[in-house]
Amino acid sequence: MHKVIFDTDPGVDDAMALLFLARHPQVDLLGVTTVFGNAAISMTTRNALFLREAFGFDAPVAQGAGVCFDPARETGGFPDFIHGANGLGDIALPDPAHLRPLDHLDAVGFIIDTVRANPGQVSIVAVGRMTNLALALARDPGIAALVKDVTIMGGAFFVPGNISPAAEANIHGDPEAADLVLTAPWKVHVVGLDVTGQTQMTRAELRALAPKSPALTLLDALSQRYIDFYDRLIPDAMLVHDTCACVHLVRPDLFTRTEGAMRVVCQGIATGQTILKPQGRPFPPGEWDDLPVQSAVTGVQADQVMALVAEVLSS
Amino acid sequence: MHKVIFDTDPGVDDAMALLFLARHPQVDLLGVTTVFGNAAISMTTRNALFLREAFGFDAPVAQGAGVCFDPARETGGFPDFIHGANGLGDIALPDPAHLRPLDHLDAVGFIIDTVRANPGQVSIVAVGRMTNLALALARDPGIAALVKDVTIMGGAFFVPGNISPAAEANIHGDPEAADLVLTAPWKVHVVGLDVTGQTQMTRAELRALAPKSPALTLLDALSQRYIDFYDRLIPDAMLVHDTCACVHLVRPDLFTRTEGAMRVVCQGIATGQTILKPQGRPFPPGEWDDLPVQSAVTGVQADQVMALVAEVLSS
Repeated sequence: MHKVIFDTDPGVDDAMALLFLARHPQVDLLGVTTVFGNAAISMTTRNALFLREAFGFDAPVAQGAGVCFDPARETGGFPDFIHGANGLGDIALPDPAHLRPLDHLDAVGFIIDTVRANPGQVSIVAVGRMTNLALALARDPGIAALVKDVTIMGGAFFVPGNISPAAEANIHGDPEAADLVLTAPWKVHVVGLDVTGQTQMTRAELRALAPKSPALTLLDALSQRYIDFYDRLIPDAMLVHDTCACVHLVRPDLFTRTEGAMRVVCQGIATGQTILKPQGRPFPPGEWDDLPVQSAVTGVQADQVMALVAEVLSS
Repeated sequence: MHKVIFDTDPGVDDAMALLFLARHPQVDLLGVTTVFGNAAISMTTRNALFLREAFGFDAPVAQGAGVCFDPARETGGFPDFIHGANGLGDIALPDPAHLRPLDHLDAVGFIIDTVRANPGQVSIVAVGRMTNLALALARDPGIAALVKDVTIMGGAFFVPGNISPAAEANIHGDPEAADLVLTAPWKVHVVGLDVTGQTQMTRAELRALAPKSPALTLLDALSQRYIDFYDRLIPDAMLVHDTCACVHLVRPDLFTRTEGAMRVVCQGIATGQTILKPQGRPFPPGEWDDLPVQSAVTGVQADQVMALVAEVLSS
């Protein structure tokens, strides 16, 4: 079993990832921590609470950061043209007062407490900005040695970014946090656009899943606007970013990785870019020296990943 | 015929590129302009004069920049562990006093005058830092519209750099100059590590060429130290960076390209990185907007390129 803390900013593809984790028989979801990103923190938290009821899982939900790790950094606007103004494709959503309430107001404390209560056993899967993870490391650096592993959706190593030619949106949204997370002494698997740019679900595939359960009916409905957005890149389909990271957690054999130290650019035109120093490649002394070796996920058997996603979502 | 100005910092692989241009039947070498980089400007100029006599070509040699486009930027040390302290593998070289003298002390003026004397006809092939080209654009922006095309060896788009995980050495050595050259309204073909990392010549292949002419005997001798350096990356072979750019000039059909606006990072840990915004990919407004579309050379038929190199060098 994988004991998982899922750090998320739902978010349309976050919703699919959450359903994947909730349905996967080898995942024990210890908690869901929210972060701002696809929408403001009040909305991503409300959405997590809503999805807990809609998907029928029981894990606690803890509210996390609403601003960047460095509070002086602008949060930027929210991508309402991708995820809708409410973060879930602008479907009608219940008032938070009608939902089971939030369990914790301090996601960072929840992460620290959960890791310390399960030393060596917790996998963190983070699919939004890295703010909560960075704050947890800053508050209690000792957790790095106690976490089993960290899997993030973010970054772009050998392909263009999505929010700029250099940067992927999750990393770009809080680069200082990401730089801290990627250089901390824990093992991070970075599932970025190199692979998530290849994992697609078509509108028709999602529609075919919809009748199988109320959760899938909902997922189909809330994903329509997101699929509309992706029309500019791929016809009538969506990229499955966040679920792809969850698949890496349970089936790393469906991917290939390039190991190496990583840094995140925090200023200038390349802000938010993830830069890998491949292990064993010689370079003059520089900013990547003496850092932990992380895993850049650079190859994927996309068809097999998507078949597994459909199977788990339908289960 | 390609009327060519060759801007170079010889440099071991520069020497091979110069012999390739001098021997290619469809190249009319209008001049050689020198720049600092693989060694100080006094050495790269001396080396160009030496190679002119050794290779038996007649084009004028003009001395160019010895410091960066922004003189406040440090030039950095010279890579004597790659090209030797004298820039040509530390073989014994004649005193400049015994060589046919330099034709011009102002490479930038030579470039401008030659372009203006041959409007629409001159191809610039630049295989060192972009300093001379940037200075020429700054002094006479009108030349951009009069140059036929520019081919540079430099950059790394979808592969790691060589002087840092982010940057290739020619661009890193004068990033402000490179940013100006890549954003100017002329057509640039950027032949970087994406392809030159695949064009290799083994020590045995070079040794087999050596007996075919005195020029090749010399090329073999001056390349030995460079091949020794590459042992850390590839066994008993060298990467053929600069000649690869020359091959692109005469046989673009052996390559594939990705078109788009380009910028160069000029500060921070990614300094010297070339970042491409692929044409047609949507991004929020940013630093790549409204810039000329350049060509990133991203694919190569390496075996055919190397066969052509051996054929031309032997001719």
